Amino acid sequence: MRVKPISGFPEHLPADCLAEQELIRQIRTQYELYGFSPLETCAVERMDVLLSKGDMGRQIYGLTRAAEDDSSTDMGLHFDLTVPLARYVVQNAGQLVFPFRRYQIQKVWRGERAQKGRFKEFYQCDIDIVGRQSLDPIYEAEVPAIIDSVFSALKLPQHIIHVSDRRIWDDFAATFDIAADRLPALLGILDKTHKVGVEKVREELSQLGFGEQPVTVAMNLIACHDIASASAVLSEAGVPTTSLELLSETIENANRFGCPASAIRPDFSIARGLDYYTGTVYETFIDGYLKWGSVCSGGRYDNLTEIFGGQKFPGVGISIGLSRLFSLLKQEDLIQSEASSPAVVLVTMLDKNNYFDQYLNLARELRGAGIPTEVYFGKKGLGDQISVADKRGIPFALIAGETEFANQQFKLKDLAKSEECTGSLAELISQLQTHAATNRARFVLSGK
Amino acid sequence: MRVKPISGFPEHLPADCLAEQELIRQIRTQYELYGFSPLETCAVERMDVLLSKGDMGRQIYGLTRAAEDDSSTDMGLHFDLTVPLARYVVQNAGQLVFPFRRYQIQKVWRGERAQKGRFKEFYQCDIDIVGRQSLDPIYEAEVPAIIDSVFSALKLPQHIIHVSDRRIWDDFAATFDIAADRLPALLGILDKTHKVGVEKVREELSQLGFGEQPVTVAMNLIACHDIASASAVLSEAGVPTTSLELLSETIENANRFGCPASAIRPDFSIARGLDYYTGTVYETFIDGYLKWGSVCSGGRYDNLTEIFGGQKFPGVGISIGLSRLFSLLKQEDLIQSEASSPAVVLVTMLDKNNYFDQYLNLARELRGAGIPTEVYFGKKGLGDQISVADKRGIPFALIAGETEFANQQFKLKDLAKSEECTGSLAELISQLQTHAATNRARFVLSGK
Repeated sequence: MRVKPISGFPEHLPADCLAEQELIRQIRTQYELYGFSPLETCAVERMDVLLSKGDMGRQIYGLTRAAEDDSSTDMGLHFDLTVPLARYVVQNAGQLVFPFRRYQIQKVWRGERAQKGRFKEFYQCDIDIVGRQSLDPIYEAEVPAIIDSVFSALKLPQHIIHVSDRRIWDDFAATFDIAADRLPALLGILDKTHKVGVEKVREELSQLGFGEQPVTVAMNLIACHDIASASAVLSEAGVPTTSLELLSETIENANRFGCPASAIRPDFSIARGLDYYTGTVYETFIDGYLKWGSVCSGGRYDNLTEIFGGQKFPGVGISIGLSRLFSLLKQEDLIQSEASSPAVVLVTMLDKNNYFDQYLNLARELRGAGIPTEVYFGKKGLGDQISVADKRGIPFALIAGETEFANQQFKLKDLAKSEECTGSLAELISQLQTHAATNRARFVLSGK
Repeated sequence: MRVKPISGFPEHLPADCLAEQELIRQIRTQYELYGFSPLETCAVERMDVLLSKGDMGRQIYGLTRAAEDDSSTDMGLHFDLTVPLARYVVQNAGQLVFPFRRYQIQKVWRGERAQKGRFKEFYQCDIDIVGRQSLDPIYEAEVPAIIDSVFSALKLPQHIIHVSDRRIWDDFAATFDIAADRLPALLGILDKTHKVGVEKVREELSQLGFGEQPVTVAMNLIACHDIASASAVLSEAGVPTTSLELLSETIENANRFGCPASAIRPDFSIARGLDYYTGTVYETFIDGYLKWGSVCSGGRYDNLTEIFGGQKFPGVGISIGLSRLFSLLKQEDLIQSEASSPAVVLVTMLDKNNYFDQYLNLARELRGAGIPTEVYFGKKGLGDQISVADKRGIPFALIAGETEFANQQFKLKDLAKSEECTGSLAELISQLQTHAATNRARFVLSGK
């Protein structure tokens, strides 16, 4: 039977599985530090629920059953974690405490054309803060602090959180009498300025009926990277600055939450989700890797559960496309997964015949002290045993023979340093515990 | 749009999500202590791969796409983690280090008839140790120690690992000239003895052509719960005891690995996987909850990758059906999920107008010290703020007003004890860290 990878469905060798899981663990830890509770929804949703969100229909994987005795196959795999959250909130509203703070780290599936960096199965790591009827805007300022904490923990090159507010463009549109639904086209074309030049963009926008003055103001606004100059541009053009002041306040509060000023900046060119977001919007870039685009995006929305009707659940949320981020980090050699085993130590067997029980006992003691441990059971000599540790990326080898057991002083070899030390089991355990705590999965994120 | 649960696809409220995730974390920790590396395979497999394993066809969920421009939809969702492992090993054999020790904690999907305790989507938590060409039988003795560690960590009522060895029944069959493929029928009927009585079973087996002597020997063997009496039964009947001695050795070695004698016992009635397992087999029961059946099962097999042909990969593995176990624990009130938030402390706001920055700063310091923290941003008084902590199951509330900020001595209220203490932030952090470490998810497993 043929065995070959299924295009678009990524899988990793063990070392990369370990590294990816460590990334997930770090993200989870940061989300929990902010008090988000883990939510897991099932992988499937009813087709009518999935199809209610615009134009995703072509990308949905539906389910079939060979045995047609199952009437419940009008289902498909979820393509994001937002539709499931909306359905879950409507379904369980009576039993949730609002604002509902949940994180959700799960695979999603999209039948997109396979292309480099695009997957059909991938991890999303989402958080949302969902209110019932209303949600204090302070949460829009908490979100950048969370993004900052996550990306600081991941030890990537410096991240910059770009923020804007959808309402600034609403003020702009109202001033120049532009219909709100034409904003995406305007921003979309303006976004090409650095590629095709100012004149070409002006021409194109003029053909679409955008007047010269609003286009000039929009261009000037997008060129601003701080509140003061944006304020000057808007004021001069007679556009109200109330929404801009809200953005300014959000940034100041984000600083109070712990997001340093150097990690957050206004960016009025953000065009993401103009049809959906109603307040602050976020995009996150990694310094030196702008070509990746945003690695963490989101925003404030007015009603999560719009497709279901009923009462309003406003919220704010972000999503990290983890599988894509992981594959980019790999490509750029920013992630070095050196270990295929979570074990911190390999118990070698120098003299299996005489001390088998004692070797097993060492392993028990090590595990009892919380140290991931593997035992060598093969038939080869010490050199080969240590090379097994090396191949698996196990950083230490415990070595003991007649003398060591007699004195209860064991050898611990640090494979990376090629150094050996001797000590009681208690002493070695304490050394290994320190190592296990600081180098949990022994993969290195190294900025260039 | 209607919103109702999809039958057979379980979902939890946040408190149970947190509890289930904590179960998974504990299982993962134990698996890693034994040096198993995390593996994740994609959710789909090619249909021909899925169908190659016997009679699962009717239960497989196939995938379809609304847009038929995708030629790769001859795929289905995996129904276990063993077929994916086999495919993965064949696909990556050249890059794996053997014995390959992997754990895999993922959802699987089976289109079974929905019934109580049976799910269509559920978690499996598997480990396997896979050799290339050969695998030392010592690993069959390591497995009970791992099972013991996992179930000890979960703090359930006492577990008992029942073990047998398929080869004992091979010896039996050879002695009485019974074809090996008739063993499942024999054991299946013998298994009903406690329900229908000895006479009925004898009659049924006689009708199937099993002679009186082998039936008597089989009945006597199944009645044995230790090696010595089993040895007597076999010897008297002229059945070789070599395989029984191997089982005895496995149990002794399991004790050396740390599995206490009280947690493991021979059980010759295990009929699971007689068509698949070739050595030791395991079933795990929880004392007082035998009606649950086995909560962790597995065994030794000769060739993981049989369906793909090529070289042999013998192995040994077990599986915990986590979703089923979780639902049983809930039903029996053995799991008490009291918290819907992972936060350990809620920073309340006694005087938001004057100290807003300082409250946010407290939250930053707490999070910086690794303490999951939520901040209250509502408009209500302290009593209501504390009742929010209570509703979410957050165990502590930090309280500060003019006096506290002036003296830098803050109040920490323990909601469960309804006690308050006062201290510097450093002192309170140290107290909360201890609590966070020992009560990570604050759900209680309590034996009855």
